[in-house]
Amino acid sequence: MPSDRETIVAPATAPGGALAVVRISGPEALACCDRIFRGRQPLAAAEGYTVHYGRIVDDGRTVDDVLATVFRAPRSYTGEDAVELSCHGSSYVVGELLRLLREAGCRTAEPGEFTLRAYLNGKMDLSQAEAVADLIASSSRAAHTMASTQMRGGYSAALDTLRDELLRLTALLELELDFSEEEVEFADRGELRRTMERIGGEIASLRGSFALGNALREGVAVAIVGAPNAGKSTLLNRLAGDERAMVSDIAGTTRDVVEERVVIDQVLFRLLDTAGLRTTDDRLERMGIERTHSSIARAAVVVRLLNATALDKATTPDDMTTLPPPDFSLRDDQRLLTVVNKIDLRPGLTLPAGTIGISAREGRGIDALRAALRAAVDTEALYHGDAVVSHTRHYAALDEAGRALDAALAALDQGLPADLLSEEIRAVIHHLGSITSRGAIASEEVLASIFSKFCIGK
Amino acid sequence: MPSDRETIVAPATAPGGALAVVRISGPEALACCDRIFRGRQPLAAAEGYTVHYGRIVDDGRTVDDVLATVFRAPRSYTGEDAVELSCHGSSYVVGELLRLLREAGCRTAEPGEFTLRAYLNGKMDLSQAEAVADLIASSSRAAHTMASTQMRGGYSAALDTLRDELLRLTALLELELDFSEEEVEFADRGELRRTMERIGGEIASLRGSFALGNALREGVAVAIVGAPNAGKSTLLNRLAGDERAMVSDIAGTTRDVVEERVVIDQVLFRLLDTAGLRTTDDRLERMGIERTHSSIARAAVVVRLLNATALDKATTPDDMTTLPPPDFSLRDDQRLLTVVNKIDLRPGLTLPAGTIGISAREGRGIDALRAALRAAVDTEALYHGDAVVSHTRHYAALDEAGRALDAALAALDQGLPADLLSEEIRAVIHHLGSITSRGAIASEEVLASIFSKFCIGK
Repeated sequence: MPSDRETIVAPATAPGGALAVVRISGPEALACCDRIFRGRQPLAAAEGYTVHYGRIVDDGRTVDDVLATVFRAPRSYTGEDAVELSCHGSSYVVGELLRLLREAGCRTAEPGEFTLRAYLNGKMDLSQAEAVADLIASSSRAAHTMASTQMRGGYSAALDTLRDELLRLTALLELELDFSEEEVEFADRGELRRTMERIGGEIASLRGSFALGNALREGVAVAIVGAPNAGKSTLLNRLAGDERAMVSDIAGTTRDVVEERVVIDQVLFRLLDTAGLRTTDDRLERMGIERTHSSIARAAVVVRLLNATALDKATTPDDMTTLPPPDFSLRDDQRLLTVVNKIDLRPGLTLPAGTIGISAREGRGIDALRAALRAAVDTEALYHGDAVVSHTRHYAALDEAGRALDAALAALDQGLPADLLSEEIRAVIHHLGSITSRGAIASEEVLASIFSKFCIGK
Repeated sequence: MPSDRETIVAPATAPGGALAVVRISGPEALACCDRIFRGRQPLAAAEGYTVHYGRIVDDGRTVDDVLATVFRAPRSYTGEDAVELSCHGSSYVVGELLRLLREAGCRTAEPGEFTLRAYLNGKMDLSQAEAVADLIASSSRAAHTMASTQMRGGYSAALDTLRDELLRLTALLELELDFSEEEVEFADRGELRRTMERIGGEIASLRGSFALGNALREGVAVAIVGAPNAGKSTLLNRLAGDERAMVSDIAGTTRDVVEERVVIDQVLFRLLDTAGLRTTDDRLERMGIERTHSSIARAAVVVRLLNATALDKATTPDDMTTLPPPDFSLRDDQRLLTVVNKIDLRPGLTLPAGTIGISAREGRGIDALRAALRAAVDTEALYHGDAVVSHTRHYAALDEAGRALDAALAALDQGLPADLLSEEIRAVIHHLGSITSRGAIASEEVLASIFSKFCIGK
């Protein structure tokens, strides 16, 4: 992971727009630009937060008219001197600007390198840097709120409070060491236990928010399962609003797990279409059914789709009070929605409470199903500003912190001396601190794995 | 075509980048932004060409941190007050900004509406406005130079010089009318004829540049034709550097005209793959051959591809001095390149002068072919700053102007009175003026047809 003091350059906008922005950051940012920029005055003479009209020239030839925005360290995104060149959105122009800036002394930036520099220069902590990439990728209000809260440091603040309390406890414990021959207890062991238990509860609560956080960041996985011809693909198309999945009257048509993304009331859902669940000798179809079971295992919500016309009139009369049990099982953290399709073909049918009747073909009952899907995801805490953990890296660190805290509590119970107890608590502090990695710089591997997921120019 | 004084908003960057720019222009640009922007000071209090950090808020909730660049009329692209908001490149954030700005009083801009306003506010003439769209679309230096020269008004200047000369002539002719009873000739008829003939020559030369200009703007069309199995698709792939066209050993495989774009030494070429030229009873293949002939008609350069292994040893010995004549004919303005493929399979073969021997499979001779293609397009005049006509609209106007000038010369020969002669010359002035439409506003239809081709946000 490069962390040198070279001046870097990259396009910050996607190809194909009316305008494009090329971003330059580093100690030589202004000097490099001045080698190719001709304006009223050199950018080196400009103050921060000013915009300058000028031409980019290559050996006398004008490449484009641009607007150059100047930022002065430390008041920039990276904390370094920086320039943003806004030019016409032509692939040729952007290519020429990058070439000329490289010739003028810039190096092409790695993905995420601007944000890496912001982190290394203390402009943000590591969890805030990660949130920048999430914010750019966000396509729903829920994902955006989560990233935005984390980027603004609400998340870091919660962790800092926990760390500060633990640091206060270890300071008291370590004070006892200085007076070890006098057998004093600065840290009251009863209070110590209560504080540690409370912190353990807060770590557990943060860990508990990961299921929601991860679902909101990646999209809430919804598996639509049911017998062949129950109308799974038709329902998926109806929910997604287009004709992505293949629909046919032949039972067993859908073999691939098709994934469709749809935003319902500001939350992103990933709808997994699945092969029909039935006993079969067809090898390809059996593979499809295996994949269906794996989709069920991955889903947060499982929509069990029944075919109204296939419900036996003898065992299930029009006035149904119960339905046959599902032929798959779910974990405690999964939600089941039972949906009966094709109600238009069986008029007069009444369904048991909690069951949603729909006609995917005619669009009946779809709003109720959408509402039920949305209700399966509780975003109240998120929208009220609660910290929600959405990164696997953070979850793993919280997991480690929780286990270290359990070990510290055990040490307390065993009446271990202050120095050993303090060491156990320092392990908790270490794991909590690794999430933000403020001050204490994270390892090269951690940084590389985080910033390589960024897009170019950020 | 809207030409009102509403404040307009549109994204100016393509989706998918690290950052996005939303552009606002119109009398209420600053006021609209201030309704959702929270910075150190309101943007309404800011000077032009300054940048301001702040938050975009929606009912207390922060949507994003942005940089707002303020422009003050008339020092902006449109000539109006304008703001550019640079935000995180998330589809959710951009969508929210557009929604909030609409609620704050902006209207969504039509494609090209920012440039239309620049034209209507006298910031550029019509041919310069057209060049803006060309510049954004340019993907080669030649297309970029042409658009850039036109945008900078080099083109308009050439037309203005011609118009000014014609206006001077009509002024002299019209002066004679005031003295009509005295039979004076302010405009010497001999000089008049020489000037008009010179202007006619310049109009013809501009018209003549259209073949080059249009080819550079659209890409120079190259038809690769030859017998089945001559290796046309392999050559196309070799030139284009990927596996776009379908290649197979079965003669007659290629039925569709595949088009591949490739930039050779800063000029864009469109390589048209074609079906093999041979006599056949297959209906589909016959359709392919018809399309091949239409490709030949459209091409600026035709590459005639011969198969070295198919050249009869009896009629064409290893030491060839001539080749069989082509089985298609070309116009005077078309260039023919004769290329013999598969020379690796016929060692010792020598070719007639002017013929290029290649092995598309091994890559031999490809550089020579690329050089020959590039040499078929003369961009010297363009790179030396000559005006090159690239728009059909301009070509049509020059055509009309040329015809009107011929009519004026005929009127001169017939000794028509000054008032009628002046009227004929005014027709030339009108047609030349319609290209830039400076001052005299173009018709709604012309504006609509020009600006509807623009992208959103420009």
